Amino acid sequence: MKSAISPKRSENFSEWYQQVVTHAELAENSPVRGCMVIRPWGYSIWENIQQELDRKFKATGHLNAYFPLLIPLSFLEKEASHVNGFAKECAVVTHHRLEQTNDGKLVPAGELEEPLVIRPTSETLIGASFSRWVQSYRDLPLLINQWANVLRWEMRPRVFLRTSEFLWQEGHTVHASREEALDETLKMLDLYARFTVEHLAIPVVKGVKCSWERFPGAVSTYTIEAMMQDGKALQAGTSHFLGQNFAQASDIRFVNKKGVKELAWTTSWGVSTRMIGAIIMVHGDDDGLRIPPLVAPTQVVIVPIIRDEQHTAALLAYCERLQKQISHKKLKGQNLRVSIDKRDMSSGEKKWYHIKRGVPVRVEVGMKELEQNMISYSCRNSNANVLKVDVASFVKNLSGILQAIHKDMLGSARNKLSENTRVVTTLDEFKEAFSQKGKVHVFVMAPFVDDEKVELALADMGVTLRCIPLQQPQAEAVCFFTGTLTRTWALYAKSY
Amino acid sequence: MKSAISPKRSENFSEWYQQVVTHAELAENSPVRGCMVIRPWGYSIWENIQQELDRKFKATGHLNAYFPLLIPLSFLEKEASHVNGFAKECAVVTHHRLEQTNDGKLVPAGELEEPLVIRPTSETLIGASFSRWVQSYRDLPLLINQWANVLRWEMRPRVFLRTSEFLWQEGHTVHASREEALDETLKMLDLYARFTVEHLAIPVVKGVKCSWERFPGAVSTYTIEAMMQDGKALQAGTSHFLGQNFAQASDIRFVNKKGVKELAWTTSWGVSTRMIGAIIMVHGDDDGLRIPPLVAPTQVVIVPIIRDEQHTAALLAYCERLQKQISHKKLKGQNLRVSIDKRDMSSGEKKWYHIKRGVPVRVEVGMKELEQNMISYSCRNSNANVLKVDVASFVKNLSGILQAIHKDMLGSARNKLSENTRVVTTLDEFKEAFSQKGKVHVFVMAPFVDDEKVELALADMGVTLRCIPLQQPQAEAVCFFTGTLTRTWALYAKSY
Repeated sequence: MKSAISPKRSENFSEWYQQVVTHAELAENSPVRGCMVIRPWGYSIWENIQQELDRKFKATGHLNAYFPLLIPLSFLEKEASHVNGFAKECAVVTHHRLEQTNDGKLVPAGELEEPLVIRPTSETLIGASFSRWVQSYRDLPLLINQWANVLRWEMRPRVFLRTSEFLWQEGHTVHASREEALDETLKMLDLYARFTVEHLAIPVVKGVKCSWERFPGAVSTYTIEAMMQDGKALQAGTSHFLGQNFAQASDIRFVNKKGVKELAWTTSWGVSTRMIGAIIMVHGDDDGLRIPPLVAPTQVVIVPIIRDEQHTAALLAYCERLQKQISHKKLKGQNLRVSIDKRDMSSGEKKWYHIKRGVPVRVEVGMKELEQNMISYSCRNSNANVLKVDVASFVKNLSGILQAIHKDMLGSARNKLSENTRVVTTLDEFKEAFSQKGKVHVFVMAPFVDDEKVELALADMGVTLRCIPLQQPQAEAVCFFTGTLTRTWALYAKSY
Repeated sequence: MKSAISPKRSENFSEWYQQVVTHAELAENSPVRGCMVIRPWGYSIWENIQQELDRKFKATGHLNAYFPLLIPLSFLEKEASHVNGFAKECAVVTHHRLEQTNDGKLVPAGELEEPLVIRPTSETLIGASFSRWVQSYRDLPLLINQWANVLRWEMRPRVFLRTSEFLWQEGHTVHASREEALDETLKMLDLYARFTVEHLAIPVVKGVKCSWERFPGAVSTYTIEAMMQDGKALQAGTSHFLGQNFAQASDIRFVNKKGVKELAWTTSWGVSTRMIGAIIMVHGDDDGLRIPPLVAPTQVVIVPIIRDEQHTAALLAYCERLQKQISHKKLKGQNLRVSIDKRDMSSGEKKWYHIKRGVPVRVEVGMKELEQNMISYSCRNSNANVLKVDVASFVKNLSGILQAIHKDMLGSARNKLSENTRVVTTLDEFKEAFSQKGKVHVFVMAPFVDDEKVELALADMGVTLRCIPLQQPQAEAVCFFTGTLTRTWALYAKSY
């Protein structure tokens, strides 16, 4: 069967991904290598992700603030492992002016005394403010979030997945005790996991990173890992327990109830526009994007089928009444997002336009429907099926239809995850699992010991350790990289 | 009388401003010169401004998108007057890595082939995308907006008013004709003007800039100008008619209905975090900030007056019931924002805390109020007045009370603007008006001819030409800088 996107997923997954991004008008490459332009359709998905997460952050007591884009080198240097982790991929500002040379060329001028780095993340800069804001136990917990752009110079950029500049939120919190900070770290991990399941229809594995996959400067890094349709893993969000490392580096101290000065405990956590990449690779099909209804910019598109210009006015009026009725219906407390495609274009072209862009429900209205007070509709997750129903029952059932689409998408992603996860206990099985015979990769659960030997063996095989899942098999086995008996199991995968 | 902010406005307006920013916890300076940290209270005002403007932009058909932070030098160079306007204040990225020297110091490494500039504004970069997105008349009008951070290196930074990095929105649109583009320019100017009046309670003068105050590369720049309490002008927003200058530079062309390729017409328009500076300087008093109710992070704060710990639970329950009732009331379609101050702190301290931060309505509840089912409240615009009323009528009238506060703030700002605007027709009067005898400056309407002589004379006097107001006196007079008879009048002022 012919598909709207070429190549198909099975032919070349990575090129299919790029084609979906292009055909769905999600983003495009910019003249600056590694930086992307997020087009309105892609940006609107991001806005929906933002709004829901922002509601959840505020409901859990977090306040938004904004910290500068530029970080002095001396700040980055404060935390030794932190600077080592980010120094290799920084954009460095060295001048504050341009001057024209005699031949009319612009050249940098006004050299700065101390170079500045465009933030790759903001722990060190925010720490400087926190050390002023936190004086007493009364100021704690301090729960701050920032929506911002960050920059990490990428040698192998890939739109949404690995771009030099990306948009994200970074939460930064300060607590009076280790327990509270650890609670916050896990609470935000859980918030992310619930969001990806309940809003993006993406199942995730929650876990903690091993030593060599940790955020530079963290005591422990928690993660949610999702499986793409090619069986590779994508890290969809992280939550870091920073212990007292950054409090020490930034001098964040508070006077406790007994009047004694103590070092505070901090956390940080973030998700980014990478989530849009996950949506594409988990839900897309050979006809293009499929957007989970809760974050779809348009949840329902109405396409008038105009065969005869004399009917235009009547059909548009019919569509507008329908739009109005739909826009008063709700899904999870939010009004439905519905639009009419009035463009001067054939209905066949329009149909494929909306399929490729992944609109969950497409309604078609021609004169037959109008005369019978009905509509025809089809859902993006089962394109071929066109259903004709009367307007009233359609409007009444619409929220349910959208919920069913979400459930269907989540169910099928869950099936793929469980079908493609294997438990192995020998090196041969492990090698066989990653042998690439089939085109779809797998997730592997295997015994684990945190040892450099494992790190080196995995690097050789091009396999990564995604996490030590919070849910453990509770069995004892031998780590076949080290020969050590262990009760810890880890999740291994090829990854993005 | 003692005031909460020292110095008072009349003593030292500029230092008073800085003290309000500090005491209201709006923002603070960052370690990077000219960059600010926007604290949660200040950022929340910005979020309210953003949300309302974003609603208005979307209601007028604009879509949000996101374009890269970094601009190649070659792009800036495309429009000659544009690059001249911005080259003097650019942050230039020249390296993409840091390396540690033998003595442990970090130094820039990985020099870029072509330096990149952090966007001071995005016309040239967005133009490159638009030239791809616009092919046919069917693609027009193209109405795009971006919420972003921008950077212009500032030699004399001032928090919110002139910071190197600031947050803003930049609208960028493409049209098929001169008329449509000019319409859009004026429509957005009008949207800004209505927003400042209806949401920020700030009256503005709408006008067009003279040649030397124009946005670099624009055909004409429209502006809204507001008067601060010291009589100086602040440009609060601009809307640019770019003619075909940037379409030419970026090659934005479309095939018209007749099948002929035409050069398009573009506009751009923006407002920024500077608006928070305007709020402070238009509405603040000697006790601190006064926030217009529609953009106040907290519109009503409830302070329980706990004299005896045994009453704590009863008082808090009373406050929570009240909070719930209030949070269901609406102001311009939005739920009221109400909080309870439960902190362990004296009620006197709390009172001044909220006064300095400018919360519009402060409610106090003690045991007396509880027993009588009443509350005591005072409005920030008339602090001394404490009113005691029963709960039901307070909740019922609250939206009206907030509207009255808005009206009062707008009225008093309007009075100041008209009282401090003079019409002059001679150079002596002009000089006298700007002689600084009193401490409050004035706005001056005087005859105008767009001539370099005027530019030079004004520069000598430290006076700026704010705009040629859209509303003109319709009288003929002589421009006393050039001796030319004219029917055009301009607005002159000292400015920020």
